[in-house]
Amino acid sequence: MTVRVGVIGTGMIGRDHTRRLQQVLAGAHVVALADYSFDAARAAQADLAPEATVYATGEELIAAADVDAILVTSTGSTHEAYVLAAIAAGKPCFCEKPLATTAEGAKRIVDAEVAHGTRLVQVGFMRRYDAGYRMLKEVVDTQIGTPLMVHAAHRNPSVPEAYLTPMAIHDTLIHEIDVLRWLLDDDYVSAQVVFPRASSKAHAKLRDPQVVLLETAKGVRIDVEVFVNCTYGYDIQCQVVGEEGLANLPEPMAITKRLGAELKNDILTDWKDRFVASYDVELKDFIAAAQAGTASGPSAWDGYVAAITSDACVTAQDNEGTIIPITLPTRPALYN
Amino acid sequence: MTVRVGVIGTGMIGRDHTRRLQQVLAGAHVVALADYSFDAARAAQADLAPEATVYATGEELIAAADVDAILVTSTGSTHEAYVLAAIAAGKPCFCEKPLATTAEGAKRIVDAEVAHGTRLVQVGFMRRYDAGYRMLKEVVDTQIGTPLMVHAAHRNPSVPEAYLTPMAIHDTLIHEIDVLRWLLDDDYVSAQVVFPRASSKAHAKLRDPQVVLLETAKGVRIDVEVFVNCTYGYDIQCQVVGEEGLANLPEPMAITKRLGAELKNDILTDWKDRFVASYDVELKDFIAAAQAGTASGPSAWDGYVAAITSDACVTAQDNEGTIIPITLPTRPALYN
Amino acid sequence: MTVRVGVIGTGMIGRDHTRRLQQVLAGAHVVALADYSFDAARAAQADLAPEATVYATGEELIAAADVDAILVTSTGSTHEAYVLAAIAAGKPCFCEKPLATTAEGAKRIVDAEVAHGTRLVQVGFMRRYDAGYRMLKEVVDTQIGTPLMVHAAHRNPSVPEAYLTPMAIHDTLIHEIDVLRWLLDDDYVSAQVVFPRASSKAHAKLRDPQVVLLETAKGVRIDVEVFVNCTYGYDIQCQVVGEEGLANLPEPMAITKRLGAELKNDILTDWKDRFVASYDVELKDFIAAAQAGTASGPSAWDGYVAAITSDACVTAQDNEGTIIPITLPTRPALYN
Amino acid sequence: MTVRVGVIGTGMIGRDHTRRLQQVLAGAHVVALADYSFDAARAAQADLAPEATVYATGEELIAAADVDAILVTSTGSTHEAYVLAAIAAGKPCFCEKPLATTAEGAKRIVDAEVAHGTRLVQVGFMRRYDAGYRMLKEVVDTQIGTPLMVHAAHRNPSVPEAYLTPMAIHDTLIHEIDVLRWLLDDDYVSAQVVFPRASSKAHAKLRDPQVVLLETAKGVRIDVEVFVNCTYGYDIQCQVVGEEGLANLPEPMAITKRLGAELKNDILTDWKDRFVASYDVELKDFIAAAQAGTASGPSAWDGYVAAITSDACVTAQDNEGTIIPITLPTRPALYN
Repeated sequence: MTVRVGVIGTGMIGRDHTRRLQQVLAGAHVVALADYSFDAARAAQADLAPEATVYATGEELIAAADVDAILVTSTGSTHEAYVLAAIAAGKPCFCEKPLATTAEGAKRIVDAEVAHGTRLVQVGFMRRYDAGYRMLKEVVDTQIGTPLMVHAAHRNPSVPEAYLTPMAIHDTLIHEIDVLRWLLDDDYVSAQVVFPRASSKAHAKLRDPQVVLLETAKGVRIDVEVFVNCTYGYDIQCQVVGEEGLANLPEPMAITKRLGAELKNDILTDWKDRFVASYDVELKDFIAAAQAGTASGPSAWDGYVAAITSDACVTAQDNEGTIIPITLPTRPALYN
Repeated sequence: MTVRVGVIGTGMIGRDHTRRLQQVLAGAHVVALADYSFDAARAAQADLAPEATVYATGEELIAAADVDAILVTSTGSTHEAYVLAAIAAGKPCFCEKPLATTAEGAKRIVDAEVAHGTRLVQVGFMRRYDAGYRMLKEVVDTQIGTPLMVHAAHRNPSVPEAYLTPMAIHDTLIHEIDVLRWLLDDDYVSAQVVFPRASSKAHAKLRDPQVVLLETAKGVRIDVEVFVNCTYGYDIQCQVVGEEGLANLPEPMAITKRLGAELKNDILTDWKDRFVASYDVELKDFIAAAQAGTASGPSAWDGYVAAITSDACVTAQDNEGTIIPITLPTRPALYN
Repeated sequence: MTVRVGVIGTGMIGRDHTRRLQQVLAGAHVVALADYSFDAARAAQADLAPEATVYATGEELIAAADVDAILVTSTGSTHEAYVLAAIAAGKPCFCEKPLATTAEGAKRIVDAEVAHGTRLVQVGFMRRYDAGYRMLKEVVDTQIGTPLMVHAAHRNPSVPEAYLTPMAIHDTLIHEIDVLRWLLDDDYVSAQVVFPRASSKAHAKLRDPQVVLLETAKGVRIDVEVFVNCTYGYDIQCQVVGEEGLANLPEPMAITKRLGAELKNDILTDWKDRFVASYDVELKDFIAAAQAGTASGPSAWDGYVAAITSDACVTAQDNEGTIIPITLPTRPALYN
Repeated sequence: MTVRVGVIGTGMIGRDHTRRLQQVLAGAHVVALADYSFDAARAAQADLAPEATVYATGEELIAAADVDAILVTSTGSTHEAYVLAAIAAGKPCFCEKPLATTAEGAKRIVDAEVAHGTRLVQVGFMRRYDAGYRMLKEVVDTQIGTPLMVHAAHRNPSVPEAYLTPMAIHDTLIHEIDVLRWLLDDDYVSAQVVFPRASSKAHAKLRDPQVVLLETAKGVRIDVEVFVNCTYGYDIQCQVVGEEGLANLPEPMAITKRLGAELKNDILTDWKDRFVASYDVELKDFIAAAQAGTASGPSAWDGYVAAITSDACVTAQDNEGTIIPITLPTRPALYN
């Protein structure tokens, strides 16, 4: 069965996912498009999905009888309403992060999905689909003994002026928050943030770098360096220390060269290249589940927990050095 | 346009490619199947392509009006006839290696395609589609100066009793023969083989390892270690030495571990895992070209040259230490 | 000029240093030995320095007219008195760590040396003489911009029952405390300790692993994993993150192997092998300075600061999660 | 016992070895110096060995009653005569390579030493004392099974105009010729040379790079890339392939950095830095043997075999592609 997909939001990521469904992946076709800019939706139609219908609103698209499943790739503040509408229509829905702009909004989605009774929502935490993280999880689960610590780093070469201190949590650390929970099969119980001497490359309204210390329910201690003006590259590091050994996230594939008195390989500088293959895999997973009328992968619950944890981390930023407790509601049975 | 593909040969590789077209890649559907075992073709139909028609012969499949393009994945000795039939029908044809079992057979295909006037044949030299080789080619072309030497190795953990000395060329070195020509944009002018002390792991009828020395028209000297009972893993190495520096084929992605007094990562042991991603890419390329009624990638000419070179290498095995000249016919304009 | 050295304490390390001076390094001879076990001193004489005089006490050895310089390698609780006696005698003195068992004792040595007016004391912080740390310091000083963070780890395969929680500071972290001050040319202003879930390999009276967080006067944030039952090896890691890039302490030299489906190299398991070459270098430095009647390298002040910092870290262990301030006295001009 | 050493030849290497004996290593003193330039010998005396006597000729130095052992570091053409004189005097003698400028000359030394009846000569093949090669030998001997192949490279950034094609053997490959025999405990039976396309960086009278193929008595096949204008660095590579696995010579210790979109470490460019530590070790070995009135390490026989092998390689250069047999005389019992 070919899944007939409607895409809401035809900006960069919406177009990119449309291209995936049309040109790369088997099993789905884009039959509907919507954007707050009707012209943008028309352009996406012309370029990528000539047979798709363009709808004036996301709500109409969700309601369309020939749309089996929804991709929400619109601006973040609109996600909650579209996802709730998809759940109301009983249609599988892939939602780019954030699931909602507040923890309360995410909770409303969780409640709606629980009321619906089966999973319909997949959140776009693509790192869970990255081949490197998947290999790492396999090794962590089977070879290094009980995990005790994680040393991680999330480094960007630079960020624009509009990137302020809390965005280091909401836009950057959010990926580690989700993927480390998944990697460890664990939840967070506290967060602490300390600020090293600020890099002179960071603008005045951003404290950069930051060190975020997380503690999990099982007692794992995590340190994450968040450094968004590191200048040298886009670099994601993750080392898990278990009772019997260590395992590291692989570096991206690169050509080792000997040139000019150096042994070296390139480091990526554009975040879009780092996990590009995982977008294919997450949508493949979405298609497969949607063919069965449901969703799998990162859930609305995961989106909700990420929102709660992010909020605690921002509180920790505002209270440097203080350990901020994180309390989660009871996990509904739907998400076990 | 969705390409309607007919698959001749539904053994392991034929089924695997059918799965790719049906479940992984956008742009094609398998509409026809044939195998010398009708039951095998039926089983593939049942498992992977319920809507496909099963034909009694490859010739009927090629002739079928609703078949746009052909995959030849049958046993090697049948390739030549099917490819010639596909050319006669004017249909794009992907042929697993070998293109033919003799250089003369490959030449007949080249002649037929040249007579047809446009490319229709893609040979299954998948390494050209491997991400690592592609990155290596980019670096070789732009960063290390004129290539002067290549140091390569092709190692298998072990081979069965049926694997005899010449198969180290026809079944193993054949991949380096093709991919190094492509990597260097060059042709071979001589071959020499020397045999180190034989490994005690090799059976009596196989001289293993072997060192093959190739010389190219541009003067590049290539040494390839072929060691098919190396025991430790399936390991493909390629280092290009240019006037200004070196570049190495990347190792497959792996998790670096610290365990039991060792810093280590796994090496693959099954050849099927090493280039698995490249099969997707080569078929994607085939689909794209077939949509335009033609073929791209490794050509019938490449298959022909590989056959001539292989024959010279086997002669070099039979005359250890002697440098055997390799003379190629003039390349038809179709392949420039 | 050959320096005539007296060695106080002929246990394992005392004998090893005696061997160095007698058999490895140019410029010094051991002319005097003492140990609380006269028999042990006699044995060292017989094995390593037949022409040396054995003294009944360290005090007599220090006073001997033909002794130019002193090595204090006796048990830790005796260090302070011998070093003070050496200063009183105006003789250069190399003292294995700890300089004294308390910060107050270290301060008495500092005061005595300041009163003497020139440096006479070198403390056995041998990592400053390790080729890897020296290369790292060169890179940190010149290539990666202002240091902002350090990620470090100190891992031992296992420790005996007698090793209790505070020893993770006094016996283990003490090396990072000294070498990171030197590496960064900085001092500590606070310490925090958090305890991950304890490894099941650790005995009941030891909290293992530990994460120690240090803050420096210049604002560098340091995290040190101390894990003394890591099982897999003796492993010292140090990564410095600067404004423009990162630098890592090199791994010990090792043979990379491909064996048994693994690409690997050995990790050391015995701490004595890790910095063995640096003992030669530190004594070479001591000899060179002693020839001029003075001392260089890690000073009494460094020993004192290490003691103060260690005390703060133990307080931080006793108050998990609390940031403990570290206040240093003014540095005497002698140590600038 | 302190060995009293006389140094003949006070150029760069002679001065450097004098410095080692005077300032670095225990167990020896330089008591005599000679050079064809008396002023040069005087200058070395003034700078490094004020208490040494300067002799007008090497012969007088060798004859001096207070000289226990000789270092021959004069120009190559004078080595044979000095070494023969040292043997005649019954004094241990360290001779920098070449032992003699011809195989016949080396044979005369072997004959003289055999007639003397005990070893007196150590040749300056310092790689045997390199920590990396020693670790490699340990692994080759114990972990990877019977050696079958060696892949090696000897690369220099550039050479002067005076460096001609045969020097790639006599001055460069000579190190691999010796160290691989020692590593494999084997001898050569044939040599072949092929020339890749010449690097445009090489001057007109030098064919560069070269590939030298050696075969040993035990059947090991060795390929050595000699590339003396590789531009990027001084780089020595050695990989041994055994029946059960591979082992690689370690890279020199270096700081891994992440800087400017690259993960990298420096490669050495000056050959003098690559094996600098091994000079200390070879002279330590010489001192220890000289204290017992004999010599160990690389022998006159090793020097002779290296000369025979080099001559065959030059013949192979002159007959590109031809396999040149290498026949060695019977090894005298003294060298077993």
